[in-house]
Amino acid sequence: MTSDTRSSESNASPHGAGNLPAARDKLLFTPGPLTTSLSVKQAMLHDAGSWHWEFNEKVQWIRERLLALAGLSRDTGWESVFLQGSGTFGVEAVFATCVPPQGKVAVLSNGAYGERMLAMLQCLKIDHIALRTPEDTPNDPAVLDRALAADPAITHVAVVHCETTTGILNPIERIGEVVKRHRHVYVVDAMSSFGAIPIDFVAARIDYLISSANKCIEGVPGFSFVICRRELLLACEGWARSLSLDLLGQWRGFEKNGQFRYTPPTHSLLAFEQALRELEQEGGVIARGARYHRNQKVLVEGMRQLGFRPYLDPKVQSCIITSFHFPRDPRFTFDDFYRRLSHRGFIIYPGKISQADTFRIGSIGRLFETDLRALLAAVSDVVAEMCVEMR
Amino acid sequence: MTSDTRSSESNASPHGAGNLPAARDKLLFTPGPLTTSLSVKQAMLHDAGSWHWEFNEKVQWIRERLLALAGLSRDTGWESVFLQGSGTFGVEAVFATCVPPQGKVAVLSNGAYGERMLAMLQCLKIDHIALRTPEDTPNDPAVLDRALAADPAITHVAVVHCETTTGILNPIERIGEVVKRHRHVYVVDAMSSFGAIPIDFVAARIDYLISSANKCIEGVPGFSFVICRRELLLACEGWARSLSLDLLGQWRGFEKNGQFRYTPPTHSLLAFEQALRELEQEGGVIARGARYHRNQKVLVEGMRQLGFRPYLDPKVQSCIITSFHFPRDPRFTFDDFYRRLSHRGFIIYPGKISQADTFRIGSIGRLFETDLRALLAAVSDVVAEMCVEMR
Repeated sequence: MTSDTRSSESNASPHGAGNLPAARDKLLFTPGPLTTSLSVKQAMLHDAGSWHWEFNEKVQWIRERLLALAGLSRDTGWESVFLQGSGTFGVEAVFATCVPPQGKVAVLSNGAYGERMLAMLQCLKIDHIALRTPEDTPNDPAVLDRALAADPAITHVAVVHCETTTGILNPIERIGEVVKRHRHVYVVDAMSSFGAIPIDFVAARIDYLISSANKCIEGVPGFSFVICRRELLLACEGWARSLSLDLLGQWRGFEKNGQFRYTPPTHSLLAFEQALRELEQEGGVIARGARYHRNQKVLVEGMRQLGFRPYLDPKVQSCIITSFHFPRDPRFTFDDFYRRLSHRGFIIYPGKISQADTFRIGSIGRLFETDLRALLAAVSDVVAEMCVEMR
Repeated sequence: MTSDTRSSESNASPHGAGNLPAARDKLLFTPGPLTTSLSVKQAMLHDAGSWHWEFNEKVQWIRERLLALAGLSRDTGWESVFLQGSGTFGVEAVFATCVPPQGKVAVLSNGAYGERMLAMLQCLKIDHIALRTPEDTPNDPAVLDRALAADPAITHVAVVHCETTTGILNPIERIGEVVKRHRHVYVVDAMSSFGAIPIDFVAARIDYLISSANKCIEGVPGFSFVICRRELLLACEGWARSLSLDLLGQWRGFEKNGQFRYTPPTHSLLAFEQALRELEQEGGVIARGARYHRNQKVLVEGMRQLGFRPYLDPKVQSCIITSFHFPRDPRFTFDDFYRRLSHRGFIIYPGKISQADTFRIGSIGRLFETDLRALLAAVSDVVAEMCVEMR
């Protein structure tokens, strides 16, 4: 079963507004875990031996396929390394392993995931500075340039590509230029963008990129992965501040015998293998990005027609997730809105913005234009039911 | 579908010796990931929203059920906390969170998992001492007693209950008596024993116990869990050396809104919920332990009849996994033996003992006496095929 047979999947039967037993899963309009294809989930109906060569061949295939997806290869000096746990574990592993004892990290932050990087560095007792812009404003390469010129202690720069706090896209290529002019190491959290938004590693001068199994590749959660320059990773010997989060140790494990050092989420990896095949069948990163763009366009047009206002300027808005202001009418409460949509089979997401009352709707995962239109119809019904005045 | 319908499961059709496409999964005689029931895997055919109340209710149910399985409850001051990643992540999280800056850990070690604890403490820069016994000898409470008397800097004692390096069982109750006489904190890695070997938390004076989803509860990999005294955990404020591995932060997340702080392995959790129900249906810890004991007894008797010698004295051997010496005949190589068994549909495990050439066979997971007998028949055939002289 492949990506285009979705109409026969378990998610396809209609969903009423009542509390009847669910005939299908509710659709997830979230930043992840996402709605995935049935075939991706069915790949998990097997128990693989984590020491067994058949499983290790799959792991090796996935590692190479990930590099190819990024337009890279081992021959040109790149590596991909998986780490058990969520994306946060992958980001922290890069800091915990790859910043030297006297290193200092400049973090560009305009949302919760930039702030989370700062919290990690605090815990790890790694020196750092925050370069903040407001949540609706992309990171500023010129500010970074001045900060790097002023502080020679800085060794690493870290940025979030798509900050799902709002859905904003940060200019990773222009930031990369600045980082490399100052000869620093460049870390990009591409959790929510990799697989759907083309990323030119060479043009953006990326050294370490982190993403996760359960985002745009449409796998299930269980691990993150890091794509990085081998030469840089090998230079990190002895710096690891945690055994579990030791990225170099993890890489050495794969090199030694093709295995994870510690128990891998075998079922998540089987699902990921299938997800990568389905990404290929769909036409790769460009085709997947195009579907998400259509989803997001249909969503915003429909929501605007219903009277909702997106939080971000369209010029900086990604196709991944969109924040909408609450309607001004006090009859609108997020909790009520959320529950009524949930009863109709649609799961949206709360806001995470500190300066404004918003909710979020994701456009990624195994969702198609028809799903967005179905969601819009439900939103329209719910707003009417709640007697919310939209003008 | 429940545990007693196994004959109709995907693992049930016969398996030839050739390289034909597998009609079913190979059976895993390993320390995990294990062969699980089809119904546990089928629970993963759903995408759950990690922010959604329906999923969070399941998480809460699992947390309470785990305490009940341990004979504990929140009312009497106990908590269960999940952590994304493998069991190793859970063990390291306890050290990274719960040892104060000036703390010192005494680690009782007689195998690779004790040594791994020492490696973690090294990475985390936590002061520690190793109290080693040979791999075939249980940890010695008297040696611990003298070490604690001699070194007043020690604050914590850590031990591995079933050291799967060999399959040996360590005396956690007698060790706990010593730890408490010295008023220290007691950490037990029960990765491979919890759910099958009854553990009396009060009698053993356990403060922190760590286990994993993919061991004797027969779930799939993706997370570990820690069962601990609330009062002790709450006293760890400000000690966390990692954000991802901050066990107190993780607990506060569950308390705040019932959610994981960071993306949970939703599918693994759905599988675990089903696995807990199947454990209950089987008759709980006692019944499951009895099945594993039967499996292990059948295995050892059969292997002895074939001329194989177990590594451990039966008095210290657990029902979890058994190490066997290589036959003395040089025609025996592990690689050949392993591959021939694999072609017949049986996955065994390599040895991990530093002092002897051994291989290991697990008796846990969704395996029954008939599976062990089928394995024994295959071992007999393979030994004959390889022309290995067993006497």
